[in-house]
Amino acid sequence: MTGVMFDRIALIGIGLIGSSIARDVKALGLAREIVVSSRSAETLGRAQELELGTSYVASAAEAVRDADLVVVSVPVGASEEVAKQIAPSLKPGAIVTDVGSTKASVIAQMAPHMPESVHFIPGHPLAGTEKSGPDAGFIGLFQGRWCIFTPLPGTDERALDTLKSFWAALGSRIDEMDPQHHDKVLAIVSHLPHIIAYNIVGTADDLEAVTESEVIKYSASGFRDFTRLAASDPTMWRDVCLHNKDAILEMLARFSEDLAYLQRAIRWGEGEKLFELFTRTRAVRRSIIEAGQDVDVPDFGRHALDKR
Amino acid sequence: MTGVMFDRIALIGIGLIGSSIARDVKALGLAREIVVSSRSAETLGRAQELELGTSYVASAAEAVRDADLVVVSVPVGASEEVAKQIAPSLKPGAIVTDVGSTKASVIAQMAPHMPESVHFIPGHPLAGTEKSGPDAGFIGLFQGRWCIFTPLPGTDERALDTLKSFWAALGSRIDEMDPQHHDKVLAIVSHLPHIIAYNIVGTADDLEAVTESEVIKYSASGFRDFTRLAASDPTMWRDVCLHNKDAILEMLARFSEDLAYLQRAIRWGEGEKLFELFTRTRAVRRSIIEAGQDVDVPDFGRHALDKR
Repeated sequence: MTGVMFDRIALIGIGLIGSSIARDVKALGLAREIVVSSRSAETLGRAQELELGTSYVASAAEAVRDADLVVVSVPVGASEEVAKQIAPSLKPGAIVTDVGSTKASVIAQMAPHMPESVHFIPGHPLAGTEKSGPDAGFIGLFQGRWCIFTPLPGTDERALDTLKSFWAALGSRIDEMDPQHHDKVLAIVSHLPHIIAYNIVGTADDLEAVTESEVIKYSASGFRDFTRLAASDPTMWRDVCLHNKDAILEMLARFSEDLAYLQRAIRWGEGEKLFELFTRTRAVRRSIIEAGQDVDVPDFGRHALDKR
Repeated sequence: MTGVMFDRIALIGIGLIGSSIARDVKALGLAREIVVSSRSAETLGRAQELELGTSYVASAAEAVRDADLVVVSVPVGASEEVAKQIAPSLKPGAIVTDVGSTKASVIAQMAPHMPESVHFIPGHPLAGTEKSGPDAGFIGLFQGRWCIFTPLPGTDERALDTLKSFWAALGSRIDEMDPQHHDKVLAIVSHLPHIIAYNIVGTADDLEAVTESEVIKYSASGFRDFTRLAASDPTMWRDVCLHNKDAILEMLARFSEDLAYLQRAIRWGEGEKLFELFTRTRAVRRSIIEAGQDVDVPDFGRHALDKR
């Protein structure tokens, strides 16, 4: 459709995100060559079986040689290591980008190692599922989803435009903000929800009065909605927590404060306070549906899906 | 299929649950007459337009006259009022049941008013969606879902069996436990999840650093999973909070304690503690899928549903 945009793309990391990029690039013919790299031999072998690229190399340094676009899709905690590895072999004029969920930390880890001759442009496609690994990716993952860029001051506009066109070709809607604001926004729309989901599933798992089999058996009453997020990749989420600490702690503090207020209202039987909150939150759901950010099918449409 | 089980069924309250029962009873021909009652004239009118019953009366007392089965489907806080209203006109031998999400409180509210001559059997179908009102119901809502009975000591076995057969005819899987245990189980699988969901949506709604439109725009990154539960009926959930107070406060205390532990691990960069929890919770999701309590389609299958 769009035609070849890059002679050679190097994908460092080939999990859910990396492998979805690979599938789209291949399907759309956006590159002549797709070099796939993973530090895990097993993952790399699987990527090859799935025919996600045109060549497969264990060494990230090797992978980026002569690449016009380098996409780093690794847990954010591994960013600095990757930056150090690839820096010496990057081709002058290459665009180097990432897909990490935290931006200030990734910039702090990668920018100091990037040679002057390349365009380092941090990015974050807001797309994914609770599955991970090269098998989890699919064509169209980024379709209609936002991709946020947090370019550094002095970024070459032409390189930025090229990168934006690339993501637009994958179906993404493009946005731009500064890294600090990105990290705050993501802390509330993504990081806090995941942490809360992990936490409640942990709490339920630890009960003595209610058995785990009861929790599972009756989970359709609400609990299961949390288990999807709590099934996300542990390495990725450990790294997000460690690398967006300040914004996450701020959101957690607010959440806990609000929960204490709610708890007190329950203890003292203050029905009107509960009713006020429970009414207000309905409007947020409505806005999300209107913005086309969720499907308006009751129960996430599971009823239609689980006709077994 | 099953044929007529009752001459006359009275449905007190005709929201999501009541109207789903009505639709199933009609479709399956389980009763000759379905008397529908609601204290809201608007709801009653709508039920009539939808042809959910065979007759429609504002007075609950009127509705239960000559009914063999009475199903009370009102917010749990209204249980006592309904019990008082219907008690004098209940037919001897009638089965009176409810669908409330808290059982000890409903029993305390209703049992003292029930005449000796009727069979009062508290029940709770674990089914529903985030929608409410008579339009929200649908045929098959209870299909494959659990219905938990919390019979009082001395309950007539034949009446209990009849009621169980009725719910089985609607497709429910039947369970039985004591009311206190029910309330603890539901506090963790349903009440806490709803409260947490309401709370996080409230927290997000209150931020200054991140605008509401940003929260909505980027909600697909995790946040939107919570908004479904937080769109549930405010009256119903206010009542649940007020009427299962002790169990809910216990679960909230545990949740907060666990969250403080997590928060501390994030603050002090204790990655291994985070990793341990994030790994453990994955197993819970897996068990829920294996138990057939959720669909194993990434992202709740939204990707398939929202091909717009």
